[in-house]
Amino acid sequence: MVDLFGGNPDNPLASIADSDETVQLLDTTLRDGEQAPGVSLMPEEKADIARWLDRAGIGFIEAGSACTGEGERETIRRVTDLDLDATVTSFARGIRKDVDLALDCGVDGVTIVVPGSDKHIERKVGTTHDEVVAKTGDLVAYAKDHDLWVEVIGEDGSRADLDFLERLMGEALDAGADRSCYADTVGHATPEETYEYVSRLAELGPVSTHTHDDLGFGLTNVWASLVAGADLVHGTINGIGERAGNVALEEVAIALAHGYGIETMNLETVYDLSKQVSHATGIPLPPNKAVVGENAFTHESGIHTDGTLKDDAMYEPYPPETVGRERRLVLGKHAGAAGVRAALDEHDVSVSEGELKAIVERVKRLGDRDKRVTDADLLAIAEDVQGRERDRYVELLDLTAASGGGTPTASVRLRVGDEERVASGTGSGPVDAAIEAVRAAVGSEANAQLDSYHVDAITGGTDAVVTVEVEMSKGDRTVTVATSDSDITLCSVEAMVEALDRLLAADRPDRDDVEPEDATLADGD
Amino acid sequence: MVDLFGGNPDNPLASIADSDETVQLLDTTLRDGEQAPGVSLMPEEKADIARWLDRAGIGFIEAGSACTGEGERETIRRVTDLDLDATVTSFARGIRKDVDLALDCGVDGVTIVVPGSDKHIERKVGTTHDEVVAKTGDLVAYAKDHDLWVEVIGEDGSRADLDFLERLMGEALDAGADRSCYADTVGHATPEETYEYVSRLAELGPVSTHTHDDLGFGLTNVWASLVAGADLVHGTINGIGERAGNVALEEVAIALAHGYGIETMNLETVYDLSKQVSHATGIPLPPNKAVVGENAFTHESGIHTDGTLKDDAMYEPYPPETVGRERRLVLGKHAGAAGVRAALDEHDVSVSEGELKAIVERVKRLGDRDKRVTDADLLAIAEDVQGRERDRYVELLDLTAASGGGTPTASVRLRVGDEERVASGTGSGPVDAAIEAVRAAVGSEANAQLDSYHVDAITGGTDAVVTVEVEMSKGDRTVTVATSDSDITLCSVEAMVEALDRLLAADRPDRDDVEPEDATLADGD
Repeated sequence: MVDLFGGNPDNPLASIADSDETVQLLDTTLRDGEQAPGVSLMPEEKADIARWLDRAGIGFIEAGSACTGEGERETIRRVTDLDLDATVTSFARGIRKDVDLALDCGVDGVTIVVPGSDKHIERKVGTTHDEVVAKTGDLVAYAKDHDLWVEVIGEDGSRADLDFLERLMGEALDAGADRSCYADTVGHATPEETYEYVSRLAELGPVSTHTHDDLGFGLTNVWASLVAGADLVHGTINGIGERAGNVALEEVAIALAHGYGIETMNLETVYDLSKQVSHATGIPLPPNKAVVGENAFTHESGIHTDGTLKDDAMYEPYPPETVGRERRLVLGKHAGAAGVRAALDEHDVSVSEGELKAIVERVKRLGDRDKRVTDADLLAIAEDVQGRERDRYVELLDLTAASGGGTPTASVRLRVGDEERVASGTGSGPVDAAIEAVRAAVGSEANAQLDSYHVDAITGGTDAVVTVEVEMSKGDRTVTVATSDSDITLCSVEAMVEALDRLLAADRPDRDDVEPEDATLADGD
Repeated sequence: MVDLFGGNPDNPLASIADSDETVQLLDTTLRDGEQAPGVSLMPEEKADIARWLDRAGIGFIEAGSACTGEGERETIRRVTDLDLDATVTSFARGIRKDVDLALDCGVDGVTIVVPGSDKHIERKVGTTHDEVVAKTGDLVAYAKDHDLWVEVIGEDGSRADLDFLERLMGEALDAGADRSCYADTVGHATPEETYEYVSRLAELGPVSTHTHDDLGFGLTNVWASLVAGADLVHGTINGIGERAGNVALEEVAIALAHGYGIETMNLETVYDLSKQVSHATGIPLPPNKAVVGENAFTHESGIHTDGTLKDDAMYEPYPPETVGRERRLVLGKHAGAAGVRAALDEHDVSVSEGELKAIVERVKRLGDRDKRVTDADLLAIAEDVQGRERDRYVELLDLTAASGGGTPTASVRLRVGDEERVASGTGSGPVDAAIEAVRAAVGSEANAQLDSYHVDAITGGTDAVVTVEVEMSKGDRTVTVATSDSDITLCSVEAMVEALDRLLAADRPDRDDVEPEDATLADGD
């Protein structure tokens, strides 16, 4: 029994960093992750993800489950053909056929899953404890004869009889298994239970841990497992998986690195890897997700922004660059003077103390109502406060968009400077056609680029208000605009025209209403 | 020092459930949660959320930060006017003005935040340790004189000098504070550090814990705090908040209830509360979020569905009804025979063993390609396998939709049975107008209802493929359909027409190509 909480040298976490011991990761994004409802990865997506995982230095990659079908085996073969540094494994049920199918795919190892709890042995599989133990021993010996790395999982282990689990894993290790794995298949265990189970298994030989997040204890139980002596952690990128998902490997990696100085993977690649997996699986990253969420290094409230401007580490546990990211300061209802001034500086707008105070007030008020305060909003407020007349350079006069059975078609009438321009366009849908028409009207000499186009998910009905956010750039100047309307076409065009106006206004030839310091708006950084 | 992992009776978690001791929750969704970038709650939304939190039996509700401005104070007053059972508090900086402003709002208590770490004392506030201690004592005495419940937070406490934190909290408690609060403001601490800090503070008097999830340790550190003697947990619904957010209170509640038999709130209300907060804040619930994510009780893979059909608890730690939810079985690439048969039964479609096998194969293949297998997909596959000709009852012949400056307008030409029908409609946008036109063409006698309309978030460009999912019902029969296209209008109409076809086909008068058992399709449940 380990006295955990007192710097006791028996706590393996405290000593691993100073010793030869390591903690390794087994990524099961391609197997348990893909079992998430609604997720299906194409073979080339799986191969890409495997390549990224390997580049990130993850030691074990579970490429799939060879028994699922020929398509799955083709995919596993694509991964084994990559000749990665990682040990590539397949999931296998406790039957010889599954191990043969895995061998057929050229994997380096197998994770053999056998029923662990009474529920699984008796109700699901309909067998006996003795039979499970005997068959497991035979199968491990068979797999070892074929030179595979072998790990044995007792499914639903956290609800298994611990004495039986010990007997099962003892047999597996005696038969030559490289390690046993504690599996909290349904995310049921407390850290105390996890500690008890893993300690007992650790006495038999090397032990891995496989946790799920149904109670929110996914990472807690990884920690308890490591303290109990586990040294290989199963998990998925972004914590995807059945139900509430597996533990998120990027959280395991940063928690061990930041908290204990234990390196498990190349953290700088983690954000790209996470986005790749999110894109391939279609499971979006929650903004408040640790490490990889959009807001993980974003500061909005005045106190936090102010503190961060004084000292980067004021409101951050570790620098965003650690995980391949950047810090972001944004404006909203909690905005403070320091944050607003920093944002105005970015657009080369100088203001007096009095003006700043007024701008902050208006930004807060807008945040109260509108939730997002974009660059365009801030610049409009600053112009208004400074009494500079907003002389629109690009203005939408008219829009018509038609779609349905035929080719989606749109036309716009724009005022650009003194000139009225009409243009039309076609596209893959009404929005695409309308944006094409705007592009045609503005002309390529404007040299402005649509960097990103995003529409929030729409729920609640066909008349729901849609929020469109665009980011456009010209040279090294960038502007973000958000608009809301229940007409997605109009909303998209308005956002683009507003952004174009902000970007092109700086270049206009008749710019005589602007104070000298504002002229630098054109140079921006 | 507590020996945590061995059923030691000194572990407070093991004993709380059997004693008079309790763990309480302080919800700060309305304060720390609202500080999440991009979140701004309207006064009526805050009042609604407060009402829900109170109904859920949460003991403490932090309604806001009275010093933020008059708008915020109005909102706090709306909450205090509700006369809730919960203790309603305001956040206050360590200055008298903030306590006065809180008193002005009629709150029951205040959480006074003072700088805790050297970084905050010296760099952010520019004061001294002695001054912080002296001022805190004075302010606590002042607040207690005004009959407030008082909790003192040392901001950035996890990076504070522990001896200083002890001195600060000792002074606060001596001056009459009800409790101190350990704050891991930047989500930096390990559970070992948390345990050490909280144990020391617990020796002085009652202690709360306030954790953030930057390392993924939000809930782990709540657990370590409770083991160390804390008995009030700060958190937010859905874990929203600055950066990676605060610990999610619904996870704290289920982990304590399921793992330790400790009741902190009425769990059955948690899902509605979570959806309410998600809707008001605009922060979507990740599908793999513990307790409240869409997939938390969804089973897709064949093995899991099969096991679940044998025994509900096979792949679930606790029944979904515990948290006000229902179990869902869905189909996809990992589909198995048992799950497919259960889904066909729901639509009253009978198939032979051979047909079932063929249908499963086709479902898996579709899942491989398409990621979602909806009711409409399954029924189409079954018809095909059984050699039943799909005789469309409702068919889209033509669609025109126009939008832009004027009134969004659309027309459709549909075949309904033998009849060709043309109708037009207007709406708030092209999609809404087109749906209106379909409604008009089908006529109200069809009596079918659009229950939900959802569009996935669009990223990647204006020509990105959009996925629309609709759920329609007629009587007690429900059908889901998903369609993808880069034209959002066409895509929405196609989904609706497909769903209408499925729902109305059952009623058609000329239905003579259908086997008797399929006629029951009309009665479905």
